[in-house]
This record gives sequence, C-alpha cells and structure tokens, in this order.
Amino acid sequence: ATIHETAQLFGPKGVWGPESTQTGVCRLSLSDLDKGVRDWFIKETENLGCEVKVDEIGNIFAIYPGKNPDAKPTAIGSHLDTQPTGGRYDGVLGVLSGLEVLRTIKENGFVPNYPIALINWTNEEGARFPMSIMASSVWAENIPLQQAYKLESVTDTDPVSVEHELKRIGYLGPVKASYKTNPIAAHFEIHIEQGPVLEDEERKIGIVTGVQAYSWYKVRVFGKASHTGTTPLLARSDALLAASKLIVKGNELAKKHNCLFTVGVLNLNPAVVNVIPEFVEFIIDVRNPTDEGLTKILADIKETFPIIAKESGKKLAVEFELIYTSDAVKFHPDCISSVRDSAISIVGESKVREMQSGAGHDSCATNSRVPTSMIFIPSKDGVSHSPEEYSSPEDVHIGFEVLLNAVLQYDSF
Amino acid sequence: ATIHETAQLFGPKGVWGPESTQTGVCRLSLSDLDKGVRDWFIKETENLGCEVKVDEIGNIFAIYPGKNPDAKPTAIGSHLDTQPTGGRYDGVLGVLSGLEVLRTIKENGFVPNYPIALINWTNEEGARFPMSIMASSVWAENIPLQQAYKLESVTDTDPVSVEHELKRIGYLGPVKASYKTNPIAAHFEIHIEQGPVLEDEERKIGIVTGVQAYSWYKVRVFGKASHTGTTPLLARSDALLAASKLIVKGNELAKKHNCLFTVGVLNLNPAVVNVIPEFVEFIIDVRNPTDEGLTKILADIKETFPIIAKESGKKLAVEFELIYTSDAVKFHPDCISSVRDSAISIVGESKVREMQSGAGHDSCATNSRVPTSMIFIPSKDGVSHSPEEYSSPEDVHIGFEVLLNAVLQYDSF
Ligand SMILES: NC(=O)NCCC(=O)O
Ligand SMILES: NC(=O)NCCC(=O)O
Repeated sequence: ATIHETAQLFGPKGVWGPESTQTGVCRLSLSDLDKGVRDWFIKETENLGCEVKVDEIGNIFAIYPGKNPDAKPTAIGSHLDTQPTGGRYDGVLGVLSGLEVLRTIKENGFVPNYPIALINWTNEEGARFPMSIMASSVWAENIPLQQAYKLESVTDTDPVSVEHELKRIGYLGPVKASYKTNPIAAHFEIHIEQGPVLEDEERKIGIVTGVQAYSWYKVRVFGKASHTGTTPLLARSDALLAASKLIVKGNELAKKHNCLFTVGVLNLNPAVVNVIPEFVEFIIDVRNPTDEGLTKILADIKETFPIIAKESGKKLAVEFELIYTSDAVKFHPDCISSVRDSAISIVGESKVREMQSGAGHDSCATNSRVPTSMIFIPSKDGVSHSPEEYSSPEDVHIGFEVLLNAVLQYDSF
Repeated sequence: ATIHETAQLFGPKGVWGPESTQTGVCRLSLSDLDKGVRDWFIKETENLGCEVKVDEIGNIFAIYPGKNPDAKPTAIGSHLDTQPTGGRYDGVLGVLSGLEVLRTIKENGFVPNYPIALINWTNEEGARFPMSIMASSVWAENIPLQQAYKLESVTDTDPVSVEHELKRIGYLGPVKASYKTNPIAAHFEIHIEQGPVLEDEERKIGIVTGVQAYSWYKVRVFGKASHTGTTPLLARSDALLAASKLIVKGNELAKKHNCLFTVGVLNLNPAVVNVIPEFVEFIIDVRNPTDEGLTKILADIKETFPIIAKESGKKLAVEFELIYTSDAVKFHPDCISSVRDSAISIVGESKVREMQSGAGHDSCATNSRVPTSMIFIPSKDGVSHSPEEYSSPEDVHIGFEVLLNAVLQYDSF
C-alpha cells in the first residue's frame, strides 16, 4: 500500500492500464518530487522513533535504536529516485520494505541488539545526473565528493549541478559522507530482479551473489558539415551515418561476445534538415558477467569503431571517453547466508535460486566497504525502467518477510 | 567588400583560418542578427533612392525606379538568412550582388526602362523554421500564410512561431504577400553552386536550367523502454538500434537509385544512458533530378523501413509524415537566354555550362508564377552549409557582371 500511496503522491507518470496501480513514476533525483518523498520519508521514520541524519551528498540515514546504542547499525538501503520512464518498484521497493521492517519491529515491541539504519541513497539511477550508484559511491569513498557535486544534469534544458540541486531542495546535510565516520555494520537490499529469470523458472526469491561488470563510454564522431542537396554521397563525411553504422556494429559485437550493448543517449550537430551532421556524440552502455569479458568487447569496440568511421568518409574520426565503470561484484558470504537461510525458511529450497544481477545497485558500493547482499523478487516479463514494471503484492510481501528474517538473523550474530 | 563587412557585423561564426575572410556566418531567420541585417539593407537601398515595402511574411522589396513607374519590376532576389553552420555566400551573394547592380546603375546615372526590385526573401534556409523557400512560397501562393505563421522553430530551447518572431523583430509588414497584388515581371538570382561541378570543369558560370526534386519526411520509430543491464538482446525493441539500421539502409537505397539521402535531425526518448530508447524521430532529406526518380526511392523506403523495423524487435513500428516537398523545376527559356547571352559575352562559351541545381532556391517559388532563372558561380571544393564555404573575389565579380548584363538585357525587351 505504501508503494502505491507514495507513487500517487510523488510523481505518477505513464498510465498503462485501468487499475490504480497501473502507472509508472517519474521522480528524478534531487527534483521537487524527490524533495517531497524525502520529507515524507523523514517524517515517517521519525514517527517510528528513528534518529535521522542527512549527509553532505544527500544520503538519508534513519537510525532505529537497538540495545547497543553505540554499535554500528545493520543497514537496509536502496533509493527513492526513479528513471524518467520509471516504474513503481525499482529502488522504492527496497526503501519501503525497510520501512515495513521498522514498522513491524516497532508494532511488535521488538528491540534489536544493534541499531538498524534505513538508508535512502541519492541518485542511484544516474538518469538525471549521468553516474549511477552516485552517492553510495561517495559514502564508500570510491569517488570524490567534488566529482559528484560537479556532475551536470542531462535531463534539464539548462543543466544544473548536483551541488546546486542539493542546496536548492535543502538536502546538502551536515554529516560527512564517509563509511569511516558514519559507518554501518552490513548492508541488505531488496530489489526487483528487472529481468525474466525468476518468473520464467517460477521461483519466488533470488539470492543475489554478485553484479555483472559494466562500463559507460562517451563516443564522439567528428565529420564534416555540408549541403544535403549538392554533396555527392561519395564526397561526404556524414557523422550520423557513421554513428548509425557504429551502433549497428556494437550490437553485432555484443552478440559475438555474449555481452549487452546499448546506446540510450545521442546528440548531433548542427541538427538541421538540409545539413549533413558534422558531429555526433553518443553514450554506450556495455555489460558482461565478468571483468575479462567486458575488457574483451571494449577492446574490440575500440579497434573496430575507428576503422568503420574511416571507411565511411575520409574526414571522419572517432574518440572515446570513459565516463563510468563498475567492476563485477561478489557479495559477502555471511550476508548471502542470512538471505539464503531466510529465503529457504519462508518459500522452500525449490522456490529460490542464486543469481547474478544484471543491473548495478547501491549494494555494489557498500559491498566495497562492509558485508553486503541482496534479495531479488520476480519482475513481470522482466520489464524495468518502464512504467509497466510490475511485481505482485504477494511477491512483494514474500520479499519483505525474507528481508525481515535476514536482518533479524544478522542482528542475532 | 560588402559581403565581408556584413558578415562581420551580423553573425560571424566558425573561424577556420587566419584571414579576416575565413569565417562562417550564423544568422538564423528572424533572429536579432537577421533584424540587424534587414535594418541595414533598408537603409542602404533607401539611400540609393529605392522605395521599400515589407510584406506580411517579412519579405523586403526595395524598388529602384524605372522610366515606366507603373510597370511590373524586374526582380533580383535571394536571402540574407543563413544556416547555423553557414558560410558567407549562400543567399547573401544574391542579395548583395543585386545591391551592387543598383549601386552601379545609380553611379552611372542609368535609368532602366522598368523598375528593378531587389528582394530579400524570408527564411529560405528552413534551418530555424523547418520549411525551406518559405516566404517566397507564401508570396507565390504555393503555401498558405497561416501555415507559415504557425511553423515552430527547431533551434530554440523553447520553440517560437514564425508569426511571433516576425512581430518581435518588427518585420510583419503591411503589404499582402501575393504575386497577384505585389507582382514582379521576372526573377533573377545569382548563387554559389554549392557543389563541385564548375570548379572541377574549370568553368566560371553555371546557367541554371532547373532544380532537382526533393522531399523531407519525418520518420517516427516506436519501440519499448527497458533496462539496458537486464534485458537480453533478443527481448529488446530498441528504437535507436532500429533507427540506425534505417539510416544505413536509406543510404544503401540512395546508392541503388542514384539519389541523395540524408538524416540531419534526430531526437530520441527517454535519452537516458541505462534505458533502451522507446522512441526515435528523425527527418530524411531525399533528392533526385526527376520527380519520377524521387517517387521511386520514396516508395522503396516506405516499403523497406517497416520490414527492417519489424525484424529488429517485435514491438517496433515505423510511421512517416511528409513535411515538405519540392517538385523538379524547369526555369523559363527567356530568362535562361538572358543569362546565357550575358555569360557568354563576359567569359566566353568554353567557360559556361548549363546545369541543374541540387539545392532548392527562392527562384523555385518565383518560377511557378513568373519567368525566372539563376546564375551559379564556383564553390571551392563544392562546400556549402559550412563555415568554409568560399568563392573567390574574382568569381564573385564575374557573377555580378553576368547578373547586371542579364538584367539589363531583360530590361531592354
Ligand atoms: N538497478 C538499476 O536500475 N540501477 C541503475 C544502474 C544500472 O544501470 O545498472
Ligand atoms: N540553397 C539552399 O541551400 N537552399 C536551401 C534549400 C535546400 O535544402 O535545398
């Protein structure tokens, strides 16, 4: 119910069916809608008796007290920001399931051994500011605070920086963003699978053992502007025709290397009907289960693209700029065990499977510093980053129970 | 000199060499810079004794008096607007050579038999407002005034209409835009070739007998948004991958049909690194010397594109919308004769050739109502719609002489 209530309050978009739950959500990081859901989140957690801390990159830590007030809290975290074509579950499920854990503990008068931190990480999606897992990576000190502050939005007509937007919505907090000075003991995250495997195999829970490797590169294609009506085909250096060939080739290489390859962003210049484009810039998102596999396809891309460009026109050239990379991740055996035990006790051995995540998550960042693991629940038709993202109320509930038990088991160590 | 002076005053952009003449011009239609050059143009022509009329679509008619004040004027026309990556000559050469004709007549105390109208046509380029030959087509009553008024700019962050911009810069004039109530007797236009033929053949003057046919279509590709990291290649309906294949195919079809095919404008949605694009819209510019040739390749495109889309993903679909078409044009024999006689008398038979224009011009519109023809001078390397557009001072001068003589010969009929 809280998933649907908050979706209606903070950014419903993309109705795709007659039911009130059949709509997506657009709640871009550090937008007014994001501020709205953050304010709501703080009120809810403070009402449950949490102490709330906001750090300098906008991460919100709601700390539910335990018997050992000075011990590092066990954390449950995910994100409340969404894609522009987002659904109701990606990220939101993780934070709100954590909220349900706190509500359940409180209602039952249960006092955990250690504090429990419920965390809303800033800009996990990388949609508005093009770096995914941004603020959990700052907290993990994997990227410098200033680098994140300077990131410019790609979805605004007039780009604004992360720092500007944090200040504007009042979420540039006083706490240092650091796993050292604001530590947690472990990190659990429940998430929708965003892929088709659990549904296809009729399983209820994915025990996530790691995350595949991925890289984002900006590719710049330089050509030559010229008149569309008077320039013979053979005399052209058409940057968009070359870019089109590169996109098609990238997909062929992905098939060959058993990787994923996608171009989601592309801009061109001068963008006039009767002028041959002289400049195209696009971003490639390339993924493979292993670091070695990713390295191989990237080498192939970097070798092949300049050749194709050269063949397409004598003034054509290609340039690559790495903008983001995330190595393959292996989660912590202790946390994986807690999730496995909890999942098997609730749905039985036949309904669970170990799996690797195709998408990156805040848990990748936390895992670099503290024991971490994740729980997946089925995604209808494997659809995500789309308004039609869907997981049934029953599956959401099972996931919550697995999370609750895993956290309580970890708390009992 | 006037070409270089006005380039420096009104929108120099794109320096490409150390000489003061080695820069391009960006003077988009109905921008502040366009207002600047219009104000200058009116002052110059009024100083020469012209009566100036501005019509309701912003066309400026500067009428130099003749012996028969009530006769229809012989017109010289072209445009002072440029491409965003424009040079110094495209259009500008035509208006300023006409100005030089008026200056020469005046200096020599020559009084023509008929008035001579020097015309600056609004939005020939179709760069800011995506319809080329716009205002001369309104004057020729080939397109309705209201359709032109409603056109929205594609180069502004917040699109504005032609009507809005005409009012804003003070060029929505009182004269009806009509060849019937504001007539001319004939139309001469001198222009750079914008292609390589004259230079390659070492000729000085092109006697333009007509213009090739061309069409602009918006192509919309509908796919399905989905996660780049979790959606298997085979499960995708990637609108940008499909669009890329269409652009590559369009070029192949152009080779097969001996046509030109270009995509200069492309937009996509949601434009996020880790989301497979669900929508791509691009504009194709397709050209052929004959109407039949153009019809053939367009039929092939309309048949092939949907098949390629379908093969690229089961949720992919394609839609076409015609946004502009210009049939092949044959200029008037009388005007062609005037240009031929004039050209041969100045540079000799071996230095001229008849040719078809690859680009559309305001003369296409005037030719539908009054005798028209054009004069081409060589373009260095055939480059146009680029800052490096260049024609030598000598060639510019020869062109001016051919124009002067052609107009005076026509005046003497
Ligand atoms: N879960 C998710 O969509 N994360 C965004 C980072 C990625 O593109 O994998
Ligand atoms: N001459 C010229 O560039 N005209 C613009 C119309 C066209 O694209 O042919």
